[in-house]
Amino acid sequence: MSPATAMTAFLGTILQVPQRGQVARIDDALIIVDHQGMIAAVITSDDPSYEAECTRFDRLGLLNRLAAGSYLLPGFIDLHVHAPQWAQLGTALDVPLEVWLQQHTFPLEARYADLDFATRNYNQLVDTLLANGTTTATYFATIHLDASLLLARICLDRGQRALVGRVAMDDADQCPAFYRDPSPAEAVAQTRAFIQQVRAMPGNDHGRVLPVVTPRFIPSCSDELLYQLGALARELDCHVQTHCSESDWEHSFVLDRCGKSDTHALDQYGLLTRKTILAHGNFLSDNDLTHLASIGAGIAHCPLSNIYFSDAILPLAKALSLGAHVGLGTDISGGPSPSILDNARQALHGARLLESGVHADMARPQRGRPDQRISHLDAFWLATTAGGVALDLPIGLIAPGYQFDALVLDPATPDHDLFLTGDEDASALVHKIIYCATKPNIRQTWVAGRKVFDRN
Amino acid sequence: MSPATAMTAFLGTILQVPQRGQVARIDDALIIVDHQGMIAAVITSDDPSYEAECTRFDRLGLLNRLAAGSYLLPGFIDLHVHAPQWAQLGTALDVPLEVWLQQHTFPLEARYADLDFATRNYNQLVDTLLANGTTTATYFATIHLDASLLLARICLDRGQRALVGRVAMDDADQCPAFYRDPSPAEAVAQTRAFIQQVRAMPGNDHGRVLPVVTPRFIPSCSDELLYQLGALARELDCHVQTHCSESDWEHSFVLDRCGKSDTHALDQYGLLTRKTILAHGNFLSDNDLTHLASIGAGIAHCPLSNIYFSDAILPLAKALSLGAHVGLGTDISGGPSPSILDNARQALHGARLLESGVHADMARPQRGRPDQRISHLDAFWLATTAGGVALDLPIGLIAPGYQFDALVLDPATPDHDLFLTGDEDASALVHKIIYCATKPNIRQTWVAGRKVFDRN
Repeated sequence: MSPATAMTAFLGTILQVPQRGQVARIDDALIIVDHQGMIAAVITSDDPSYEAECTRFDRLGLLNRLAAGSYLLPGFIDLHVHAPQWAQLGTALDVPLEVWLQQHTFPLEARYADLDFATRNYNQLVDTLLANGTTTATYFATIHLDASLLLARICLDRGQRALVGRVAMDDADQCPAFYRDPSPAEAVAQTRAFIQQVRAMPGNDHGRVLPVVTPRFIPSCSDELLYQLGALARELDCHVQTHCSESDWEHSFVLDRCGKSDTHALDQYGLLTRKTILAHGNFLSDNDLTHLASIGAGIAHCPLSNIYFSDAILPLAKALSLGAHVGLGTDISGGPSPSILDNARQALHGARLLESGVHADMARPQRGRPDQRISHLDAFWLATTAGGVALDLPIGLIAPGYQFDALVLDPATPDHDLFLTGDEDASALVHKIIYCATKPNIRQTWVAGRKVFDRN
Repeated sequence: MSPATAMTAFLGTILQVPQRGQVARIDDALIIVDHQGMIAAVITSDDPSYEAECTRFDRLGLLNRLAAGSYLLPGFIDLHVHAPQWAQLGTALDVPLEVWLQQHTFPLEARYADLDFATRNYNQLVDTLLANGTTTATYFATIHLDASLLLARICLDRGQRALVGRVAMDDADQCPAFYRDPSPAEAVAQTRAFIQQVRAMPGNDHGRVLPVVTPRFIPSCSDELLYQLGALARELDCHVQTHCSESDWEHSFVLDRCGKSDTHALDQYGLLTRKTILAHGNFLSDNDLTHLASIGAGIAHCPLSNIYFSDAILPLAKALSLGAHVGLGTDISGGPSPSILDNARQALHGARLLESGVHADMARPQRGRPDQRISHLDAFWLATTAGGVALDLPIGLIAPGYQFDALVLDPATPDHDLFLTGDEDASALVHKIIYCATKPNIRQTWVAGRKVFDRN
């Protein structure tokens, strides 16, 4: 690529997990990024053109050199964020789901009719996620068209890659009068308007912010609404997001109402596609998982939230072995952390607890579930590459053809607890990062080749 | 108290949990601390003498005013740290215990014969714990007398309150030739020398660093050694620490060898006292817990470490309901975090997972264990007050007669994820702190009235 068409270049050490179980470290790579933020080339130091290319980009003032000792990682991908719930992060995790929804969450979400309130909270949320290294976030907004468009606008302005959904929910039994769609038709019209307006938004020519068809979950939507949203997603070729087989209550509710699991019900509504993201999935059966895998729909695993609202741990290793696409979600504010790193750690913890079991009075074979652990490399992969696969977008990897969505991890920042000896191989480095890296280690965040966060 | 005998005074808002379930917030309290670091008085703003006392201490230049919006919390108490394992934090959590001990941990611990190596690592560890708000740490050192004394010296110099044990382990089947005591007599002699030298250490007149009798655990010690250490603890009136009913393997090993559980075996050896701290305890029976409670021995609950090496979750709520003393431990490096806050969060997570169960294929009544959750207030209490009770020391509370061991929590620090609205009541404040506070929020740490860490 000629420098004339290159926007910028980076010189630094890449650390990533391109495939499950396969770590890759490339020392002092030269990464050339085009004007659309796409990686045009990754030139390694043993390439004959390496020295000349480095010099050339440097002379043009286009070369970003990473600080010595830091690492360039693919940015984190968050598959499940309830943006409006940001305002109650770290509260009310001690109440049952019903109380949490009706007394805390729905009243809070209803407040986003107020655009000043929305502006303040959405800006703070997006800034915080970028500072946590989240380059792509998949958001549920609220039922309000204007506030949902505002969230999309803020993502564009702040530079985050995002998928944003205006939430649809019309069931009068499950949704309070002060916060629900008045009819299926109205919900569909608002969803259609949202999709069209996001796609037409100034500055969104490259689709950095994508609209998402977003039925809250089966219990809060009528059949009519669900069928129509399925048709709309197909008509407009949109991503879809919803919740799926999350908890004892939700899973049983759908079995009772639909006579089948969430997976098969969503498929019937036309909502299960290669571009569908299903939050949670803790109660997915082998049959469900195989079906999801055959379609290529993705699961947003939210290990922190699941502790409080899901009654069990996702059988993650099994889901992966059956070929399902899985990535990670914070599920703000069911999960109390905005950090995908925290969730990667908890995914590791949870998989180990599922394997060992938790109840010491039971004998080992009854207590646990064999072969459920995942590795530290898996955790890193889920936080990055696998999230991109789940979304069917060219993100999550630092390689030609992918967007340059990345973070600079600095082990030497103040306030950290990540102590490297310098002797770590690539796998041990990932092990330490997954267990010990924290927000202060995230020095810069880049999306589509543009710097969107800098700690200094 | 006259200012002449007061060392210093603090003006700020106290937040603490003096009893399980009982949160206390005292706005703008004046805390007067004497020359031994003991809190002489806490004067509230409705006290008739409040204004005059504030003015008096201010004029004398003795008044520390907390930054506006920050909170004064009791310092965190870590009941279980393997100090030498600091050098492998965040590594090798993917191998079985046997491999972890024999191939990683014992070879690493053996390196502390080298005092330069010990100096470097112990300084970094103590500094890191202080920066994480840990005002008291209970350390296993190594079998080396000199390096163990060095750790005690470093704690004195850095200003941390600490309990330090020179590790005893003489069993030739369980301990490698390169890292074990040559005989029970030698192990006891070295332990005695350690205790005497720590007590006589210059600068330790007030016993800020206490020696601890430290058999590693029953499997690594001969009966003769265990009996003699029990006698030594009684003779010298020392704290005791060891591991107890940690995992399937360890629990079964002791049952086979001793014909009784760890608890009853340790009691027989004379190692179970009001000043004993037992790490883990995941497999303690109701009978064991009742026995521990009757003696007043404490449990160091290490929820992060337990995920990797303990095969089950401690039935914490049950242990508390049976009257056992429980506090928290990081168990560095079986646990990958130096933060008691991280462990408080994981204690909450674990208790919920034990209650809900983890294996979705089981029906709810089989899956979980009823009434095992703890509250966010419990988590805070375990990290502070309850740790002091377990150690039988006047720490863990900001109240007259207690040592002034405290941290200043600053919600407004850079790099944090703790967003307060200002509308939180004391319980909601603790909820947000437990879930969302991180190391950058810890602005200062004080031990015995002396500032030992300042982020700025």
